[in-house]
Amino acid sequence: MTQPTEPVRRGRGRRPADEVRREVLQAAGELLLAEGMAGFTIEKVAALAGASRVTLHKWWPSKGALALDGYFNVVGPTLAFPDTGDLAADLTAQLRAFVHLMSHTQAGRVMPELIGQGQTDPELMAAFRERYSAPRRALAVEILERARRRGELREDLDLEVIVDQLWGACYHRLLIPDQPLTDEFAEALVRNLLNGVGRP
Amino acid sequence: MTQPTEPVRRGRGRRPADEVRREVLQAAGELLLAEGMAGFTIEKVAALAGASRVTLHKWWPSKGALALDGYFNVVGPTLAFPDTGDLAADLTAQLRAFVHLMSHTQAGRVMPELIGQGQTDPELMAAFRERYSAPRRALAVEILERARRRGELREDLDLEVIVDQLWGACYHRLLIPDQPLTDEFAEALVRNLLNGVGRP
Repeated sequence: MTQPTEPVRRGRGRRPADEVRREVLQAAGELLLAEGMAGFTIEKVAALAGASRVTLHKWWPSKGALALDGYFNVVGPTLAFPDTGDLAADLTAQLRAFVHLMSHTQAGRVMPELIGQGQTDPELMAAFRERYSAPRRALAVEILERARRRGELREDLDLEVIVDQLWGACYHRLLIPDQPLTDEFAEALVRNLLNGVGRP
Repeated sequence: MTQPTEPVRRGRGRRPADEVRREVLQAAGELLLAEGMAGFTIEKVAALAGASRVTLHKWWPSKGALALDGYFNVVGPTLAFPDTGDLAADLTAQLRAFVHLMSHTQAGRVMPELIGQGQTDPELMAAFRERYSAPRRALAVEILERARRRGELREDLDLEVIVDQLWGACYHRLLIPDQPLTDEFAEALVRNLLNGVGRP
């Protein structure tokens, strides 16, 4: 991600580049959640943040990249990974937060739209993966790796698969809504996977 | 689904309606896999099958409905659910077939496009759920229910959640391709979920 280094001018004076960046990300996230990708443009974000379009085009290679960074800027705090040393509790808390975000906020309308559009828009999918899904996946694997070192997980696992069986299962219900995204679902995901569903 | 009941005329003579229906579904599936949703129209299917557009519009309420029925007509046999009485083996075989279909055939290009477009096209998503995902889900739950009656699964499970943790996990990798869809993945899904990933 390009880091802003120079101050940027605007009407009400000069702001440090990192302040401009923060305001742009805030504006981008809010615009995206309010209007979805259909109403999202770099021009509107520039106007809302009082920044120049040239600056935004310099910092973000595409509309999708700005949208994804804006999205994560807004939802990131909600999606923090707890790491209390109790894997089942931590996973359940994180998945409940994710499920709540998807089922009770505008993020649950924007996320399917981003992934949906990404299926036929390779630049958007690249931005999605680079700026959202790959780092989130890496973070989840890191948490799982720590739990494995604590002895909470089997040694012989591919931890990437666990990501698909927890968060991936949620994306499945989000994108193909045959069944609801609920707290009970989040809890069952963790219980099923940690304990196994086979008869002991 | 509307069942054809009357014979339909065309140039080379009269065919029974169920034969026309079979030919239309075959043509629809082939056209969809060859050209994707972008090149798929009811008109083209009618021409390919030598059937009348009026008939097709009578039998299928939308382009999406015809596309989905055509899709399933072509891939259905590949996705048959074995039921040999050994749940782990049956699930692994079915998931391997699904993963192979998605990673080595045109279906793996069409499926993401259908789900992607469905995110902003409610009629297409309704057709997808009604004609594909809901019946597939019901079939999977039926197989799981039988395994539970045989004593292979815990009694206290919501079987719907298992569908998300197996097939949903595959859709996750299909739609957000951060990690590959492989045989090893299919096998790990079943092993993880049946045995549990927690340290015994």
